[in-house]
Amino acid sequence: MYIHFDPWQEKHKKPFGAIKVGRPVEFMLEAYDIDITSAELYVYGDGKLIPEIVMLENKSPGRFYATYTPQKSGLYFYYFKLVSRQNEQELVQYYCAAQGGVGQLTSSSELLESHSYQLTCYETEVKAPKWYQNGICYQIFPDRFYNGNLTGYIDNKKPNIFIYGRKSDRPMYIRKKDGSIARWDFYGGNLKGIIKKIPYLQRLGVTIVYLNPIFEATSNHRYDTNDYLKIDSMLGTEKIFRELVTKLHQANIKLILDGVFSHVGKNSRYFNAGGLYGEHAGAARDQKSPYYPWFSFEHYPDQYRSWWGISDLPVVDKNDPNFQKFIYGENESVLAKWNRVGVDGWRLDVADELPGSFIQNIKKNLTRYKERVLIGEVWEDASNKITYNKRRHYVNGDELDGVMNYPLRKAIIALLNEEEPVETIAKTLMQLRENYPLEFYKNSLNNIGTHDTKRILTALQGDEHKVELAFALMLMFPGVPCIYYGDEVGLAGESDPDNRRFYPWGRENETLLAKVKQLVAKRKATDVLVDGELTLLAGENFFAVGRYLGTKKYIYLVNASARPNDFYADKLQQYHDELNLRALLTKLNGKTLAPFEGIDVEV
Amino acid sequence: MYIHFDPWQEKHKKPFGAIKVGRPVEFMLEAYDIDITSAELYVYGDGKLIPEIVMLENKSPGRFYATYTPQKSGLYFYYFKLVSRQNEQELVQYYCAAQGGVGQLTSSSELLESHSYQLTCYETEVKAPKWYQNGICYQIFPDRFYNGNLTGYIDNKKPNIFIYGRKSDRPMYIRKKDGSIARWDFYGGNLKGIIKKIPYLQRLGVTIVYLNPIFEATSNHRYDTNDYLKIDSMLGTEKIFRELVTKLHQANIKLILDGVFSHVGKNSRYFNAGGLYGEHAGAARDQKSPYYPWFSFEHYPDQYRSWWGISDLPVVDKNDPNFQKFIYGENESVLAKWNRVGVDGWRLDVADELPGSFIQNIKKNLTRYKERVLIGEVWEDASNKITYNKRRHYVNGDELDGVMNYPLRKAIIALLNEEEPVETIAKTLMQLRENYPLEFYKNSLNNIGTHDTKRILTALQGDEHKVELAFALMLMFPGVPCIYYGDEVGLAGESDPDNRRFYPWGRENETLLAKVKQLVAKRKATDVLVDGELTLLAGENFFAVGRYLGTKKYIYLVNASARPNDFYADKLQQYHDELNLRALLTKLNGKTLAPFEGIDVEV
Repeated sequence: MYIHFDPWQEKHKKPFGAIKVGRPVEFMLEAYDIDITSAELYVYGDGKLIPEIVMLENKSPGRFYATYTPQKSGLYFYYFKLVSRQNEQELVQYYCAAQGGVGQLTSSSELLESHSYQLTCYETEVKAPKWYQNGICYQIFPDRFYNGNLTGYIDNKKPNIFIYGRKSDRPMYIRKKDGSIARWDFYGGNLKGIIKKIPYLQRLGVTIVYLNPIFEATSNHRYDTNDYLKIDSMLGTEKIFRELVTKLHQANIKLILDGVFSHVGKNSRYFNAGGLYGEHAGAARDQKSPYYPWFSFEHYPDQYRSWWGISDLPVVDKNDPNFQKFIYGENESVLAKWNRVGVDGWRLDVADELPGSFIQNIKKNLTRYKERVLIGEVWEDASNKITYNKRRHYVNGDELDGVMNYPLRKAIIALLNEEEPVETIAKTLMQLRENYPLEFYKNSLNNIGTHDTKRILTALQGDEHKVELAFALMLMFPGVPCIYYGDEVGLAGESDPDNRRFYPWGRENETLLAKVKQLVAKRKATDVLVDGELTLLAGENFFAVGRYLGTKKYIYLVNASARPNDFYADKLQQYHDELNLRALLTKLNGKTLAPFEGIDVEV
Repeated sequence: MYIHFDPWQEKHKKPFGAIKVGRPVEFMLEAYDIDITSAELYVYGDGKLIPEIVMLENKSPGRFYATYTPQKSGLYFYYFKLVSRQNEQELVQYYCAAQGGVGQLTSSSELLESHSYQLTCYETEVKAPKWYQNGICYQIFPDRFYNGNLTGYIDNKKPNIFIYGRKSDRPMYIRKKDGSIARWDFYGGNLKGIIKKIPYLQRLGVTIVYLNPIFEATSNHRYDTNDYLKIDSMLGTEKIFRELVTKLHQANIKLILDGVFSHVGKNSRYFNAGGLYGEHAGAARDQKSPYYPWFSFEHYPDQYRSWWGISDLPVVDKNDPNFQKFIYGENESVLAKWNRVGVDGWRLDVADELPGSFIQNIKKNLTRYKERVLIGEVWEDASNKITYNKRRHYVNGDELDGVMNYPLRKAIIALLNEEEPVETIAKTLMQLRENYPLEFYKNSLNNIGTHDTKRILTALQGDEHKVELAFALMLMFPGVPCIYYGDEVGLAGESDPDNRRFYPWGRENETLLAKVKQLVAKRKATDVLVDGELTLLAGENFFAVGRYLGTKKYIYLVNASARPNDFYADKLQQYHDELNLRALLTKLNGKTLAPFEGIDVEV
């Protein structure tokens, strides 16, 4: 008896992956050496209790076919129900998902709830601009990159902040006994500093800069916006920001800003708890303030809804029409203002906290301008995310263009730290590829570190060689690689705040930097690495990222273990590949790869 | 029956106050309307259990005389024993001290232990230089006064420190959860800044600068010396320090440094816990280090004797001959080095922690140079201080020239805050005058605030007018007035660290400053205020400081209450005055003084 279904093979499911609404999907279940009396495809629309049932046709020996055409966008979950005659008895069995790809046969219907296959069906194909999909992104935490003032003078220091004595000091929070922040700590990086370092970015091969928040705020991270319409005065003026945009564009570098719309700063112009914006202004000081309806007070003015209960960050009601108009209104809004200045894209902070319609309207605002991109901060698989008991539709085509790819980072680290079997890692990654619409997947903002994670060097126990490999893997994957400032020169850092050290000017790891430059150059020079489809190959000790596009093929093969290993292509399992990239690897048969050595093969 | 003895009146005890060893003291007890059968003076040498007993002679009606000549320096305690016949019975009574001055009659010998009169007997008359006794001192906490660099650049920032964003920010400690200091906080004042502000000091009338520690250290207060032979590199170089000395001297301003010899910094060249001075150097890293014997390790290298258990401050063994040589050796010592540079005096930090012989040797070192002064940090009456169960001999003439006068500050604040009866305050102050040798008393470094106390403005609840009065009182007292930087321009501050705010350049209280300048000028122009003997007058609501010298008389009279009060001289009790200064005040009889108004009367 052989029963088999693998949606990552075209012969079993066509087309591969997510589909546009109305597109028929062909399924083929293989079943040999078994007396099937009935085979059905059960498809549940997302949240539906009643399935659609499609009979499978036995068109050739052992092959059962069905076609299903989703009529609405959203998720679908499916499995197969098989009735067979075995030992004179009629037996009901199910074929459902396992870890991804090849599934499992079970006679227990209990498993189906959690082990159905997912079919993503989207409304619209997202069309991110070429500059984005072809880009190399560089994430800058503005306080921590470079101070462009002569003598390192810091402009417009806020009241009651501390400045690090040396750029090499490690970041720390200055807390009160109760754990709350006593004063904010700054190094004094600024926009002039970024302008001055454009040549550095160019040498590195960067074509996109993603900036953590730059609007007027209280903290060093500036996620506590005080004024959406003003550049933080420690970072620079609007004039300097305009100069930054111009100079970046002259250098063919695009700019993505952080859009923080879920909450504002407690001391913002809108909430104004501390009276910074006037004795009787803002929601917390005037119940007749135009901003008052933006907030939810449980007890005025000191108890209110705040982000994760952090009282510094009062949550805004995203359904308030005035707030919506303020953020994404056509003319006088926050987005309008900065888009007109020339901002090329936005990364939506805590997208999970924003209603879908709010995101849709931001997306609509951006489509008024040419070639703008909208990326969301979503930490998990964005195709099936549930927040506040509601399914999100990030991948539907009318919300985000893509999301930050944290699962990739997690997988790369797990691989290089040997935390999980190589096959499991490959399956997890391919599952994400399958679940996302192709263009959405290609719009992933890939990272191996951000301001919210450990630095890659630290995550990899300071092993510089592994860091090179991590960069290589990120750069070989579909999606837009995003380098977190300093990772390319071996900056270390535990979790926040240690992951926000100042860029180590003059103390760079030049060897690593040279390697990263080389990898970036390779990526940019190799079309298949940008546009190619993905295949993954995994087996004992070995992991390979395969890319193919037309006749072009590329594989990056890694010995994912701390021992030298002899490589044999036939020991690899391959996930989703129509061109049998494994064959390309056979020419490496018998080669011994050093621990964590990565090599590439190209045709 | 009238029995009376008041050592503050010359007719009762002559001479007034402390005496030099071998100087006979004449006592006279008055006893009228009582049938005395025997009167004796009981004198106990300090710590002695057996008294010397001197019979009093009844030389004229009601007057009983005795003379006692101490043969050794030190403290003596005395009272009178009277046997009288009353109602056919023989009665034993004692006349002993009460609050100071006039004493009390008691039949209980239990009271005598704590209520004997003190007679201070010193070995040598201290001779502080004229520049000191005539001086107006200004205390500067170097990090908090002025940054003399263009653009406020801070030189040689130490690793892992924080710099205040604004000079107007209030100081705070940056602590770990366990309460220990996580990082030190600096504003960036430096020696160049002091040099630049010499004209300011001159305008204020300052003739002495006392600097909190300036040697290489870790903290902002620099009481954790890392290197006694090096100026802290954030404050400046030795060259700049020499320039400071030269420029001060050119401006006729003397310089007193803080001598911190009880303990060193944990990261000092000597202890070197953190390895700052070499991997295998210093007591905590090398048991063969020449510095190893300076310290007492309970468990090497992590448990050791430290000042008040603060592990940052390992205590040095002041009896170690090498340490002694290092501090006060004739040629190559810490004192030799800085005295040769031109330092005019030293303030000994925590004098209570230094053995008497150690202080004596410092004193000897200083006498090698011309006109040097040695002041101790002692918070209470220095004449009878006991530390570690041993009587101290600060006032003996071979140790300190004087001490910081914290009791004066306490009394002034108590007076202006109406915390104690005016008479009690006067008595406490006069008691100090009595207990100290005259020159020692005149060498008191008077203050109304220091780096270790609340700011005077804050101690007086922000009442600027009272601050003026506090300055006036300090300036009218014998001793050397010492202005804590910023007090003269209305800087506020709670206890440490808030009392160490940055000098408010550009935000000075000019009215207060003008008043202080005027008072300083008055003091300097009025000999009697510098050299005159002290009398105090106190009565309901009124307090007066009287000074007299030859025929010159001066009184500063204060309405020490929040109500306007009519003044009558005869309502004042007078303490220690041979010239009846009260008579001078009669010309103010009937005058109404406003709340906390102070006026002076002079002849």
